[in-house]
Amino acid sequence: MSTENTPIRFGAVQAPDEQARRQAVARQEQLTKPAGSLGRLEELGVWAAARQGSCPPRQFTRPRVVVFAGDHGVARQGVSAYPSAVTGQMVRNFLDGGAAVNALARGAGATVRVLDLAVDADTPDVVAARKVRRSSGAIDCEDALTPEQARAAIQAGRDVADEEVDSGADLLIAGDMGIGNTTPAAVLIAALTGIEPVAVVGRGTGIDDRAWMRKTAAIRDALRRARKVIDDPEALLRTSGGADIAALAGFLAQAAVRRTPVLLDGVVVGAAAMVAEELAPGARQWWLAGHRSAEPGGSTVLEHLDLSPVLDLEMRLGEGAGALTALPVLTSAVRVLAEMATFGEAGVGGPTAAEAAGPDPAEQEL
Amino acid sequence: MSTENTPIRFGAVQAPDEQARRQAVARQEQLTKPAGSLGRLEELGVWAAARQGSCPPRQFTRPRVVVFAGDHGVARQGVSAYPSAVTGQMVRNFLDGGAAVNALARGAGATVRVLDLAVDADTPDVVAARKVRRSSGAIDCEDALTPEQARAAIQAGRDVADEEVDSGADLLIAGDMGIGNTTPAAVLIAALTGIEPVAVVGRGTGIDDRAWMRKTAAIRDALRRARKVIDDPEALLRTSGGADIAALAGFLAQAAVRRTPVLLDGVVVGAAAMVAEELAPGARQWWLAGHRSAEPGGSTVLEHLDLSPVLDLEMRLGEGAGALTALPVLTSAVRVLAEMATFGEAGVGGPTAAEAAGPDPAEQEL
Repeated sequence: MSTENTPIRFGAVQAPDEQARRQAVARQEQLTKPAGSLGRLEELGVWAAARQGSCPPRQFTRPRVVVFAGDHGVARQGVSAYPSAVTGQMVRNFLDGGAAVNALARGAGATVRVLDLAVDADTPDVVAARKVRRSSGAIDCEDALTPEQARAAIQAGRDVADEEVDSGADLLIAGDMGIGNTTPAAVLIAALTGIEPVAVVGRGTGIDDRAWMRKTAAIRDALRRARKVIDDPEALLRTSGGADIAALAGFLAQAAVRRTPVLLDGVVVGAAAMVAEELAPGARQWWLAGHRSAEPGGSTVLEHLDLSPVLDLEMRLGEGAGALTALPVLTSAVRVLAEMATFGEAGVGGPTAAEAAGPDPAEQEL
Repeated sequence: MSTENTPIRFGAVQAPDEQARRQAVARQEQLTKPAGSLGRLEELGVWAAARQGSCPPRQFTRPRVVVFAGDHGVARQGVSAYPSAVTGQMVRNFLDGGAAVNALARGAGATVRVLDLAVDADTPDVVAARKVRRSSGAIDCEDALTPEQARAAIQAGRDVADEEVDSGADLLIAGDMGIGNTTPAAVLIAALTGIEPVAVVGRGTGIDDRAWMRKTAAIRDALRRARKVIDDPEALLRTSGGADIAALAGFLAQAAVRRTPVLLDGVVVGAAAMVAEELAPGARQWWLAGHRSAEPGGSTVLEHLDLSPVLDLEMRLGEGAGALTALPVLTSAVRVLAEMATFGEAGVGGPTAAEAAGPDPAEQEL
């Protein structure tokens, strides 16, 4: 149990299995296809094998989505096209199975868990068990959380990762829901990368030019406060994040500590991932970027974490929707590596010795 | 029945259902997500609705892959890293379920049919029923096919499309298999677009620099012969294609005539699609590009047909592998549009009236 003055410490992140990775690269070359001809699908199969420590890789049987919901005081500055009441309404929609995350999870064979960390409404007990507070502070003029709340939120995310891994989840997806949450995400991204706020301010839910100017102003104000604590990830989440984002960071860090692969979603999850990499250095080795968000900050996150997205479909919903859309591509990659016949098994001749050439993309790490 | 002097005529291609398209665009705006926030996933759902003439769209229940196999005389010029014997061996691998197309089809819920149009080996009766010849002529110095063979091959593809649609296929994917087949594909692409051969000569199965130079020389020689007949698609397939590619073109054209959506694969299918658009103008309205091939000609095809690919994963295998990898993304798009709750159904508030803004990507056609 953390006390007020003890920051949360995460265990060391171990590297993925190098032997399984090498075996997977070698196996790709033996399968009945020209070496490298499946492009990134080959890399994804190798990625899975190394994270599972198994070649051939196993199909993911328990992919699990956890949606972290929370409101943000900064939404009162008019930075979103939607009122904060929508956050709680969407939590209900998740529980009723009517949201994009539900439809996509059904298609991809994943299950969905929703957590209310800071929704500014009463939510059912099933989602509110780890609730930290109603809404988070307006980060342009006050801290998002108290030190105790920040620690409780990070701990909640960490505990949920442990619960899910202990329950058998073999692939984790984190999603976000919260009106106004791309504003703290932009602040965290700008703070940790040093780039100009205007470069990471997106349209979020679809705001007009005036709201975009309000959002940019709020981000500038918040960034002034964030810059004082950029070397302390816990303080950064407290000052400029929110309970939902702090829990996301704890969840992503702990998933890596537990050697469990994660498929990342868009800009809010990405911002939390950047902080999680500070909390648990090396965590990014366990993450695969599901997609490139249409939010400008999404590309900044990918560059910062040196991750290459599976999809680029101009999505910007959150909820884990982009990661879930990418999940079937990852499972296809696992299937190819696990199920295809080798040249020897199929009695298919290999390339003419003198002419086989070209670099093998499967040799590259993601 | 076509006679020697009668070119094959395809029926008129009808436009997709405009009313269903408009209904789908309107429905996307009522679903519980910010308008346009699912990006291209929204466009893909609208695409499916318009092709099915139904909003909400139905999930595809009978996606069917047809792999068109054939050898090419030009392979004797050393344009491939693999010997021609591999084509027949791979046909056997398809039948045994060991190839990439098989693994990917299993994952995506599709079934696979293999057709030998011109494999330079004896193949089982089940795949050889529409065989036109063994191999096709070396297109750098002779016609690929006689006029009768060209017509028989196009007719075979057309008949197979009819058979599949009549058997209930609601989404068609064409695949290719044939050592050397990216050479005629490059010739057809260069002929129909007027671009320089070097811009479309790829590494195919993974050739070295010397083989690449041989391939480029063969394409230049073949292109000289192709340019004489570029206004006559049937003559172009006869001169510079091959029985497999001619059948592919007939298949893709007839699928459109039968109002059946098609998910296109890579550069060989793409080259055949360009000719199919000449055989049946407007056919491209029924096609969705599954991916951008790593072969340089793939991008040329997409530009020429004005198609935007779902995936860009540096794949270059053929077999329909890229299209099959994209299929779950398309089915996800259908699921979202069909299954998500509307704002009204879920009791979720819409955007604050004055602030909702931004163009709706779902309004754009693919």
